[in-house]
Amino acid sequence: MAALPANTPLKVGICGATGAVGKEIVGVLETRGFPVKELHLFGSERSSGKVVETKWGKVEIEAFSVQKAREMDVVFISVSGDFSKEYAKAIAEGDDGAVVIDNSSAFRYDKDVALCVPEINADAARKNPNKVIANPNCTTAIGIMALFPLHKRFGLKKVIMSTYQAASGAGQEGMDELRDGAKEVVNSAEGTIAKNKIFAHPLPFNLIPHIDVFQDNLYTKEEMKVTWECRKIMDIPSLPVSCTAVRIPTFRAHAESIVVETEKPIKVDEARDLLAKSPGIALADEPANKKYPMPLTASKKYPVEVGRIRQNIVFGDHGLEFFVCGDQLLRGAALNAVLIAEALAEPVGKDFTPKL
Amino acid sequence: MAALPANTPLKVGICGATGAVGKEIVGVLETRGFPVKELHLFGSERSSGKVVETKWGKVEIEAFSVQKAREMDVVFISVSGDFSKEYAKAIAEGDDGAVVIDNSSAFRYDKDVALCVPEINADAARKNPNKVIANPNCTTAIGIMALFPLHKRFGLKKVIMSTYQAASGAGQEGMDELRDGAKEVVNSAEGTIAKNKIFAHPLPFNLIPHIDVFQDNLYTKEEMKVTWECRKIMDIPSLPVSCTAVRIPTFRAHAESIVVETEKPIKVDEARDLLAKSPGIALADEPANKKYPMPLTASKKYPVEVGRIRQNIVFGDHGLEFFVCGDQLLRGAALNAVLIAEALAEPVGKDFTPKL
Repeated sequence: MAALPANTPLKVGICGATGAVGKEIVGVLETRGFPVKELHLFGSERSSGKVVETKWGKVEIEAFSVQKAREMDVVFISVSGDFSKEYAKAIAEGDDGAVVIDNSSAFRYDKDVALCVPEINADAARKNPNKVIANPNCTTAIGIMALFPLHKRFGLKKVIMSTYQAASGAGQEGMDELRDGAKEVVNSAEGTIAKNKIFAHPLPFNLIPHIDVFQDNLYTKEEMKVTWECRKIMDIPSLPVSCTAVRIPTFRAHAESIVVETEKPIKVDEARDLLAKSPGIALADEPANKKYPMPLTASKKYPVEVGRIRQNIVFGDHGLEFFVCGDQLLRGAALNAVLIAEALAEPVGKDFTPKL
Repeated sequence: MAALPANTPLKVGICGATGAVGKEIVGVLETRGFPVKELHLFGSERSSGKVVETKWGKVEIEAFSVQKAREMDVVFISVSGDFSKEYAKAIAEGDDGAVVIDNSSAFRYDKDVALCVPEINADAARKNPNKVIANPNCTTAIGIMALFPLHKRFGLKKVIMSTYQAASGAGQEGMDELRDGAKEVVNSAEGTIAKNKIFAHPLPFNLIPHIDVFQDNLYTKEEMKVTWECRKIMDIPSLPVSCTAVRIPTFRAHAESIVVETEKPIKVDEARDLLAKSPGIALADEPANKKYPMPLTASKKYPVEVGRIRQNIVFGDHGLEFFVCGDQLLRGAALNAVLIAEALAEPVGKDFTPKL
């Protein structure tokens, strides 16, 4: 069992505190009013000694050690898969270890590790046989906010997704490369191509249909994560889900074009009403007012925007097509991680429906 | 019947010669070695008198008149739907009228007007009962280069598309707005938002899932064009085709993520071999070498790049998933239009397979 005490100030640690996601976790803890007794920010040797201003006063970046992390009640890890593989279990081990909420893909597909979007499967985390909980891939976390309510009501039979993913998926360096590269292009002669280091190709004014490594089935790992994680989080082990994952030149919000076939007939109005009432969603579905999900409006927001809801032409009265956009660093990482911690302070069996 | 004489220099007119597509038509006529006897560039009053350097010497922009256009052998129109509605039939009418190749959507869905991608249905144009031929929507023209060979071999049963469309779809002004807006953003404080006039929202570092007007079924007209035009060009009147059309911050190449279900079982290698040999396509399908369709590589090229070819998870052995990218101004407009004229100089019944 993984649990945190309710209404009790906690010792909170963040590994990777100076990274793009780590910084956002601090912000989410602040705005969510998370009960922090002590905040420990663990960074690299390079960052050690730097001071971060927080709601709880000035916090100095500490060099990470397993021992220090184990003294926390809860530790958020957002460094790398290798870091998590090396340290997560050691931090969590035993009654005196900390609850670990891990942002990497290191443990997501392990049978004994819960993969959690707390509005969907809080109990999977609460009943987890150990204290390491995995935070899903950003693309999955964003799309599943709309997919799960549709599944509960109409039953998902097929899911076909194409993504429009922001540079932040590659961290602060990815966002910097996009901004610097775009600057180079627009301030130079027409036809100038930006340099690239973080991304496989220059991203400014381009797109790259390649995120993470290619698998034997010719999907990328990023695409397969959507398949694997949708199945695990919604507990539909054989759900047919396909994804094309594409990096586009936006900064920090991922968008997704999604077509579903459902078991039961589905009507647009019914789906829209359902999604409007579902947790974690902000309906953005007023074509006449030019309101639909976009990075411009979804960035730095907690809810995932859902819109362009329509009866899908291909699957007819059993088909729905829609568009979602959510902040990659928030619902896709920091927000979801903090919400897992919040859900762990509630009893098994209780639906988790946070006000965002 | 619409026909042009073979191996005979022709009088060629371009309406909208100073627009983004008009300029590209001049370029395509030049590089394709189109047999031009006289080139007449028709523009607005504002452009009249300007001089354009061409392979055939300096050409002065003339103010448009139906009478002058009727003296041509072939007239390319790329102005607006309203312009085409007002003038196209008058230019083409009667034995002494000109063959008109129209880039607008004014006549695309008329029963007595051929909608032509000449590698696919040259005969539809050649056998057209009148002399107005419609050039398809750019998104359709690009995607259909891969869809049609797959249909001929495997039979298309379902097509699901999501697009990544460039600013050039809104003409030179669209490209300028993207470039100027991006410049404003990267040269200002972080968080600066670009101004917009051509697009419904600022496009730099954003995306807009809204191109053309919304229809009663909540698809946009741009999305329905893909459905209607795929059906008409491939002559599969009831083919289920759905599309989500999204503007992204790229300059002049559209990309498309496409999933198909086929009547016959389809294998990846067979599909790849077929597409490699199909006209108008450049295979870009070497994941290990980071080679896949992208605006960076597809822009200013005649062939449409096709890659990321894989067995689709959802439709299994009857499903294929792939990614295409083609120059919106070329295959999506100017090139296809000039190729229609080339095809009209060949006899009915002859396959049109240009070297690109």
